[in-house]
Amino acid sequence: MSTTMHAPKGLEGVVATTSSICYIDGEQGVLAYRGIDIHELAENSTFEETCYLLWFGKLPSTGELRELRDRFAEERRLDASIYERMREVPKHVPPMDVLRTMVSTVSFFDPEEKSNEREANIHKAIRLTSQIAMIVAAYDRIRKGKPVVEPDRGLSHAANFLLMLTGKRPSKTAERALDIALILHADHELNASTFAARVTAATLSDMHSAITSAVGCLKGPLHGGANEAVFHILQAIDRSRANPVEYVKGMLAEKQKIPGFGHRVYHTEDPRATHLRQMSRDLGASNGEPKWYDYSHAIEEFVKAEKHLNANVDFYSASTYHTLGIDVDLFTPVFAVSRIGGWTAHVIEQLSDNRLIRPRADYIGPTYPQHYVPIDRR
Amino acid sequence: MSTTMHAPKGLEGVVATTSSICYIDGEQGVLAYRGIDIHELAENSTFEETCYLLWFGKLPSTGELRELRDRFAEERRLDASIYERMREVPKHVPPMDVLRTMVSTVSFFDPEEKSNEREANIHKAIRLTSQIAMIVAAYDRIRKGKPVVEPDRGLSHAANFLLMLTGKRPSKTAERALDIALILHADHELNASTFAARVTAATLSDMHSAITSAVGCLKGPLHGGANEAVFHILQAIDRSRANPVEYVKGMLAEKQKIPGFGHRVYHTEDPRATHLRQMSRDLGASNGEPKWYDYSHAIEEFVKAEKHLNANVDFYSASTYHTLGIDVDLFTPVFAVSRIGGWTAHVIEQLSDNRLIRPRADYIGPTYPQHYVPIDRR
Repeated sequence: MSTTMHAPKGLEGVVATTSSICYIDGEQGVLAYRGIDIHELAENSTFEETCYLLWFGKLPSTGELRELRDRFAEERRLDASIYERMREVPKHVPPMDVLRTMVSTVSFFDPEEKSNEREANIHKAIRLTSQIAMIVAAYDRIRKGKPVVEPDRGLSHAANFLLMLTGKRPSKTAERALDIALILHADHELNASTFAARVTAATLSDMHSAITSAVGCLKGPLHGGANEAVFHILQAIDRSRANPVEYVKGMLAEKQKIPGFGHRVYHTEDPRATHLRQMSRDLGASNGEPKWYDYSHAIEEFVKAEKHLNANVDFYSASTYHTLGIDVDLFTPVFAVSRIGGWTAHVIEQLSDNRLIRPRADYIGPTYPQHYVPIDRR
Repeated sequence: MSTTMHAPKGLEGVVATTSSICYIDGEQGVLAYRGIDIHELAENSTFEETCYLLWFGKLPSTGELRELRDRFAEERRLDASIYERMREVPKHVPPMDVLRTMVSTVSFFDPEEKSNEREANIHKAIRLTSQIAMIVAAYDRIRKGKPVVEPDRGLSHAANFLLMLTGKRPSKTAERALDIALILHADHELNASTFAARVTAATLSDMHSAITSAVGCLKGPLHGGANEAVFHILQAIDRSRANPVEYVKGMLAEKQKIPGFGHRVYHTEDPRATHLRQMSRDLGASNGEPKWYDYSHAIEEFVKAEKHLNANVDFYSASTYHTLGIDVDLFTPVFAVSRIGGWTAHVIEQLSDNRLIRPRADYIGPTYPQHYVPIDRR
C-alpha cells in the first residue's frame, strides 16, 4: 500500500495537482492567468478575451476573438422549457438554488451531452458561459414579474448581462466596471468550487455535473457568499445611520467575524481588491451615491489598523455590485457568471491528464471490531 | 505562510480528514460502519437500520427504529411538480442527469431549506433518502410511459423501491437481495462522490448542494459507472454466444481495461464482492437464469489468475441488479439510492467540525510575468 500522508485540516497548504492556468503568489499579492498579471488584464482585457486565455492558454488573435464572440452570441439562448421551469419556481427559493438546478437542467438540451472529448467540452464551456449569464438575468426578471429581455448580438458579454438584467443598455462606465469585475473573478486556482468541479470531473463524469457541483459549492458563505454578508452590514449601517467604524467595533466586541477580510492564500492585499476599491469609488461618484464606498472605506481602514487584516475580493465587490443595480442575493450568482470561465478551464485541464481524486480519512470512530447486537438485546 | 505539502496525484494515500463513520483496512479487506463489520451488517441488518447507524453512530433501539421507519414512510412523497418536471425530460437524457437535476430541484420544496443546523440536516438526510429512491423509480416508469406507483407504508425501503420500480411487490428473496446490496453500498469513506459532498458542504453551502455534487460525481465511469460497463460486457458475451474467457482475453489483447476489477483501497478481495457474488448466484438460481452469474464467475476466475486482480463491488452488482429487473442505465442511480446514507452522514460530520477544503495547485504554466500584448500586435 502507498505511504499515507497526513494533510492539514481543509487540505491547507496541500498541493493537490499541477496546473497551468492560474499563478498566485500569496506573499507578494500576485494573481496571474496563464502568466499574465491580473492588473494588466483588468486594465486592458475583456471578459471574452480572458475566457479565451483561460481556455486556450494564450491571448486570441483578432480572428480568434471575433470567432469566440460569434460563438458566445450564437449560444446566448436557452431552451423554452428552461424559462418555463424557472417560472414554476416558488418565489422564496434562493437564486443560487435555481442556478444550480438550471445548470444541471440545460444538460438535457446540450447537443454534445454524451461526449466528454476536449472539443465538446470547449463548446460546452462557451455554451455554459453564455447560458449562466442568461439564467441569472432571466430568473431575476421572472421572479420580479418582468418580461425576459433578449440579448443583443452587438453587445459585449458584460453589457448583455446588464441589458438582460435591467432591461436597459448600460452606460460605458457600468459596462466596463462589470467587465473588470468578471475578469477579476474569472479564476482563482484551486478555490473550493473549482476543486469540487475537478473532483467531479475526475470520475470522468461530465462538464455539466462538474459545473453543477461548482455552483452548489460556491453557494456557501465561506466561499461565494461573503460579499452578500458585507452588503448586509453596509445596509444595516445605512438604515441605522450608524458610524461605520462604531458599527464594526460593536461586531468585534461581540466576537463576530467581519466578512470580506483576510484570505487563506493572500497574506498581503488581495490584488483583486485594488481594482474593486477603485471601481466602487468611481461608480459611486458617477451615480451620485458615494455612501456605499464611504462606509466600505472607513471599515477597511479600521479593520486594517485594528486587526491587521486586508480587504479581499468580496469586500468592495459588495458596494460595486449594488451600485451596478444588482440585488444582494444575486452577488453570488454574478460570481458564477464570471467563475464559469475558470471552472470550465480547470475541468478541461483535469481531463487532459486525469486521475480519480480519492483521498483517505483517518478513522477515529468506535474501535474495530464492534459487534452487531440483535435489536431485542440493545 | 504554512508549509507546502506535495500530494501524490489524485490525492492517493492522502489523509484529508478524520472521520468516525467508516473503517477500511485495504490490506485485510475489512470494511466496517461505525466499527461494525460489513459482513455482520449484510447478514443481520437492514438498510433503514444501517442508515440509523451511519447517521447516529449506534444501532437503534426498537423504538428508535420504529420512529425512523415512520419518518421514512412520511417522507416518501414528492411535490407534484417533480413528477411534472420529470415528464418533460427529453427521452434520451441519461437517468443520472435527471437524478442530479431532481435532487437539486427538491430543495425548492424542502421545508427546512434555509437551515444548515444538525437537526435540519438529519431531517434532510431522511427526506433525501426517501426521495432519491422515489425519483429513480418514478423516472423509470415515466420514461417507459407507465403510471407512477405509490409506495406502501407497510413495506421496507428496499421492497418499496422494487414495488415503485416494477409495480409488483417483490419476492422475499428479491427484497432481501436489494436490501443487502443497499447495505453494502451505503458508505465507503472518502470515495470521490463523498469527498465532493464534503468539499461542497465545507463552504457552509447546504445539504442539497452537497448531495447534488455527489450525484454528479458518482455519474463518472471511474466511480459509479463501472457496473454498467461490466453488464455491457456480459450482454456482448450473451449476444455473441462467446466464451467469456475468450472474450475477456480479446479485450486484454486490445489493451482494454476490464471493468469491475481492482480497487485503489483494497489490495485483497473487496469484502462487498463476497456478498454480491453469492447474491448473483442465488438470484440466478432462483429465477432460472443462472447464465449471468456463470459468465461473471468465469471472467472473475480468469482475471484473478491472469492479472492477479480481485473483483470489486461493481463486478457482481451488475448481474445482481439485472436479475432484480433493474435496467442497466439505472445501476448507477441505484448506487445513489444506497450511498445517500453515507453521503448525508459525511455532510453532517463535516459540519460538526468544519473547515473550508481548499488545497493549492503547483503552477506549471507560462513563467510569470508574461505581458499583455495589444491585439493588433499578436
